[in-house]
Amino acid sequence: MSTRGFTSDNASGAHPAVLAALGAAAEGHAASFGADRLTAALDERAREVFGPSATILPVFNGTGANVIGVTALLQRWDAVVVSEHAHLANDESTAPQLIGGMAVRTLPAPAGKLGVADLTELLAADDGSVHHARPAAVSLTQSTELGTVYTPEELTALVRVARARGVRVHVDGARLANAAARLGTSLAALTSDLGVDVVSLGATKNGALFGDAVVVLDPALVEPVARLRKATTQLASKMRFVSAQLLALLTDDLWRTTAGHANAAADHLAGLLRSELGVEPAYPVEANAVFVPVPQHSLGAVTEQLPVLPWERDVVRAVCSFDTTEEDVTTLVTGLARLLR
Amino acid sequence: MSTRGFTSDNASGAHPAVLAALGAAAEGHAASFGADRLTAALDERAREVFGPSATILPVFNGTGANVIGVTALLQRWDAVVVSEHAHLANDESTAPQLIGGMAVRTLPAPAGKLGVADLTELLAADDGSVHHARPAAVSLTQSTELGTVYTPEELTALVRVARARGVRVHVDGARLANAAARLGTSLAALTSDLGVDVVSLGATKNGALFGDAVVVLDPALVEPVARLRKATTQLASKMRFVSAQLLALLTDDLWRTTAGHANAAADHLAGLLRSELGVEPAYPVEANAVFVPVPQHSLGAVTEQLPVLPWERDVVRAVCSFDTTEEDVTTLVTGLARLLR
Amino acid sequence: MSTRGFTSDNASGAHPAVLAALGAAAEGHAASFGADRLTAALDERAREVFGPSATILPVFNGTGANVIGVTALLQRWDAVVVSEHAHLANDESTAPQLIGGMAVRTLPAPAGKLGVADLTELLAADDGSVHHARPAAVSLTQSTELGTVYTPEELTALVRVARARGVRVHVDGARLANAAARLGTSLAALTSDLGVDVVSLGATKNGALFGDAVVVLDPALVEPVARLRKATTQLASKMRFVSAQLLALLTDDLWRTTAGHANAAADHLAGLLRSELGVEPAYPVEANAVFVPVPQHSLGAVTEQLPVLPWERDVVRAVCSFDTTEEDVTTLVTGLARLLR
Amino acid sequence: MSTRGFTSDNASGAHPAVLAALGAAAEGHAASFGADRLTAALDERAREVFGPSATILPVFNGTGANVIGVTALLQRWDAVVVSEHAHLANDESTAPQLIGGMAVRTLPAPAGKLGVADLTELLAADDGSVHHARPAAVSLTQSTELGTVYTPEELTALVRVARARGVRVHVDGARLANAAARLGTSLAALTSDLGVDVVSLGATKNGALFGDAVVVLDPALVEPVARLRKATTQLASKMRFVSAQLLALLTDDLWRTTAGHANAAADHLAGLLRSELGVEPAYPVEANAVFVPVPQHSLGAVTEQLPVLPWERDVVRAVCSFDTTEEDVTTLVTGLARLLR
Repeated sequence: MSTRGFTSDNASGAHPAVLAALGAAAEGHAASFGADRLTAALDERAREVFGPSATILPVFNGTGANVIGVTALLQRWDAVVVSEHAHLANDESTAPQLIGGMAVRTLPAPAGKLGVADLTELLAADDGSVHHARPAAVSLTQSTELGTVYTPEELTALVRVARARGVRVHVDGARLANAAARLGTSLAALTSDLGVDVVSLGATKNGALFGDAVVVLDPALVEPVARLRKATTQLASKMRFVSAQLLALLTDDLWRTTAGHANAAADHLAGLLRSELGVEPAYPVEANAVFVPVPQHSLGAVTEQLPVLPWERDVVRAVCSFDTTEEDVTTLVTGLARLLR
Repeated sequence: MSTRGFTSDNASGAHPAVLAALGAAAEGHAASFGADRLTAALDERAREVFGPSATILPVFNGTGANVIGVTALLQRWDAVVVSEHAHLANDESTAPQLIGGMAVRTLPAPAGKLGVADLTELLAADDGSVHHARPAAVSLTQSTELGTVYTPEELTALVRVARARGVRVHVDGARLANAAARLGTSLAALTSDLGVDVVSLGATKNGALFGDAVVVLDPALVEPVARLRKATTQLASKMRFVSAQLLALLTDDLWRTTAGHANAAADHLAGLLRSELGVEPAYPVEANAVFVPVPQHSLGAVTEQLPVLPWERDVVRAVCSFDTTEEDVTTLVTGLARLLR
Repeated sequence: MSTRGFTSDNASGAHPAVLAALGAAAEGHAASFGADRLTAALDERAREVFGPSATILPVFNGTGANVIGVTALLQRWDAVVVSEHAHLANDESTAPQLIGGMAVRTLPAPAGKLGVADLTELLAADDGSVHHARPAAVSLTQSTELGTVYTPEELTALVRVARARGVRVHVDGARLANAAARLGTSLAALTSDLGVDVVSLGATKNGALFGDAVVVLDPALVEPVARLRKATTQLASKMRFVSAQLLALLTDDLWRTTAGHANAAADHLAGLLRSELGVEPAYPVEANAVFVPVPQHSLGAVTEQLPVLPWERDVVRAVCSFDTTEEDVTTLVTGLARLLR
Repeated sequence: MSTRGFTSDNASGAHPAVLAALGAAAEGHAASFGADRLTAALDERAREVFGPSATILPVFNGTGANVIGVTALLQRWDAVVVSEHAHLANDESTAPQLIGGMAVRTLPAPAGKLGVADLTELLAADDGSVHHARPAAVSLTQSTELGTVYTPEELTALVRVARARGVRVHVDGARLANAAARLGTSLAALTSDLGVDVVSLGATKNGALFGDAVVVLDPALVEPVARLRKATTQLASKMRFVSAQLLALLTDDLWRTTAGHANAAADHLAGLLRSELGVEPAYPVEANAVFVPVPQHSLGAVTEQLPVLPWERDVVRAVCSFDTTEEDVTTLVTGLARLLR
């Protein structure tokens, strides 16, 4: 596999501004476990970004953020409802079950997005019996695992369905920045403004070295999330080093710059696929991921020789990063052209 | 509280060599989840350090390393035996129970160390009945939570007791470097050479920004530890950033330099306490921590005005770091002198 | 709702022979937790029934048996594969997740039975990555939740698919007796003879007052199951009272008599539905359950006025018991006729 | 071991009245999972016994009742405080950890009872830090594992300490009947009247075949306990068979008769030990258990030849049941006399 990759946006390194912030934070001593100056500054900045009721709790990674955020919404006898493609359902081993004890109920999501009708039906089917895990939270991935983006209207409708049945809402925002950059909205417009309860805010895939955050929008959840952060092993002792990165990304909307760059690279890639190869992506390109149809017999060669991820039997995934270059894209398209013709 | 602190060795920042390694690692793209060049180099280096049967699996923090390492040794109906002062027993919230489902059995440890007689008695008391959580592993903290150090002879005797009953051995080595630096031994001499099964290897408290590791010495445990690392949320996607730091510390025995510096600072502090204040530390100073007896009525003033941690009713803890300066120590002793006289 | 019911086969009481056995067991003192004479006799009888490698461990109920049996087959990072209709997936709250920490993967099962192609595909899709819960066991319900029965040939094919990938096999036999009675086979012919690892053997629904059992067919699983029985709260202190009932049912094949009676009642009910109402059951009637199509607008009236269970929007379930009488069946059909015409 | 035993009060069988109630309940059909007439009658009776705010939820056994009751009082990051002798700490394998995810904090209890000073100190030591499992509930065993009984005054003082820190109170009443019979109080006088939140009410050891109950005294806990009963595998489908037994014991205070008989037998045994052997029980005989000091070299012979339980190195336990006869006691004392002289 070539060094520069499209297998995921975690193949990239660190944005220079994030790295610089980390270096600056490394000087001298600071109180541990979040009682430091940078974490305080981050919390203040998060309130500007997400609104006055927000509290941000830095964690190590997205799996941690998801498990903490969703578990905080559930009792021990509850289920979370997710898309069939959700990270929580497919890519977190047994973390949701082993740690959160939760049942994970999946709904079909042809283009990565939950539908109002499906969610309504699933929630209505719960008869309140103790025999069934109670669907007490829904988790929405934004942008989705298929590179699509929920519009604010779609989110509003889903949140309304949930709220009407007393069901809480989590947003898996490992790529929330990509969605907001694409839609041209604030981060709050996709979360706090809509009545979302808790957000997994991604940074690792958007220019950080490591670190994501749980953004708590319901103040009553701050204590549970803070307790769960420790009980799930996600509390950093030298927390300033997570906070510094998150703060760098939230400063001057660097998150939008980096995510916007990745989105644009995906657009460029999709455009070249169409113009050069006559190939239409398998799903609408609305964030930074392009799903490329390939003949089933070529999939082995493509994934061995090109830095893309096998997805389905006849689709590969190419995800762009904050630092994907035009040359990266051209090289990938040239390679695909060679193998697919 | 003053900026430079002794509350813990996680108050310090990053060693310049570690930070430089992190910066160098940030360039360009790399395969994620440990399939990168730096993680491979780290694994090779770990085998040189811990012996050919060792495998190192980087994680985010010590709680993660402990929960993973011990859980890998236990069935779902088992208990781990630890000192009453152990981090696993006191400082990891419910992580061992919530994630590992384990019972934690504590033994008295007056100077932080488990005793052979106590361990023998506890293990012998297990009658194999299904009613009792089976003591299937013992976890030894080296250096201990009270700043003392097990000698290789003490470790050998404890491992022998465990082995004789088929009980596995974990070493919580958040400060293993401090112990080895003090004893003048290799890291292997305190672990692999003695038949230890799995080690939590600390880096965060020894000059890293974040990151520790599970060092697996029984090859049969590599798969369980790798699986648990994911299922416990401790798998870093951009793993090169943990590996780079660990590699820097294991290169040219930087770990010994940093730990040795911290140990020497603790010695210096203990010396000044004796000579200037006539105070003998509460426990032998064998690593980088000094436990300072203070009159109970002074404890409030001491912990409010000086960067030390309240420990017991009449003891405070001062932990030295890789970057603790003579001035730091002098300032602390001066402060103590002022408040205790 | 009328007193005599078809909502489930747990609406019935106790078979006189079981009750008599319980009464006889109540005399005098006996060693607790399974060290009694009746449990020993049961274990011997179970070996006659299931083969010499079998061990039977009585438990309180089917949810307990399922959670214990499947958990014993899984590591903490594993998933169990089940039909979309499985009790484990729908009717055990979060017990499989909260206790077993397991992911539950469902496959479509139009008539209640897993298909070879679906299972093959799901297992083949596992790439061994730590990101995905490993499908390490499959659980087959016999007879199924839709009242159908796997033939020995179907079971053989499914077990072969599982074995080929190192996947273990559990049978949820809450109604195993009904399947064997229908097929005219022994209990072993549906389990031990096919390479099944562990069985949940139902008794409650077949004439007992309470109590089921985990039948362990792989001797290496006896210790794990025995330990899990205690750790999951399913160990009875006065175990003779569970064993006595199981022993009564396994003596002179009482289980076949009771299950056969229930099956015959279901046949009778299905026959009357066809002849009197011209209604064909929604699924083949192969055990003791009949799924009756009803117009959606009648479902409310039917389930309010008749002792049947609402199943889907336009189907109700009627389950026959060991003591269902001809009059019970006739009364039900008369009621249906009244409401559906 | 002889057939009639003192190893535990679960060596006995069933009280005739309980068995008769079970037989009567076995007739005909009834709604499952607690929607039956007997469970309704039991709930009504429980309100008479424990007061109008009580709800009784039958379960299978004491481990189940304890795990459900305590888990309902705890968040996922909490600890329960118990005596070092508590069943929850020693005799439930890893059930509290595996299912409840709870940390179990033990306090010394020389005669089986928690002390006010110890409890006060432990609770006061909690600094609210996320690092430590929060002591959120205390569980008191009544009568204790050492056969002693908390007086209402002692309970009042302990509950007051807990309440003052917002800590909830569970009573492990596997032998609550023995305590109330000894003290001559109602069951409410030891629970509801004192502000206890939830009670594990034992029946198995007091004349039932199986079955205990969770008595919920805080109405807000009914839903959690009902949900947990299912999620912990403790929900009986044919619940009438548990309810019938509990109802029999609560009718005409049969519980007091059976427990009183067992207590009297223990008194008689203790008296004979003193008069015949000159041996003073190791702990005050306040319920139905007698702890008999034996020379360490005789312990093997005593426990092999007599139906008593080895307890400590030089103590054996003899527990009397509802059906222990004078002859049983005499035979035991004769045997002890033979072996100890």
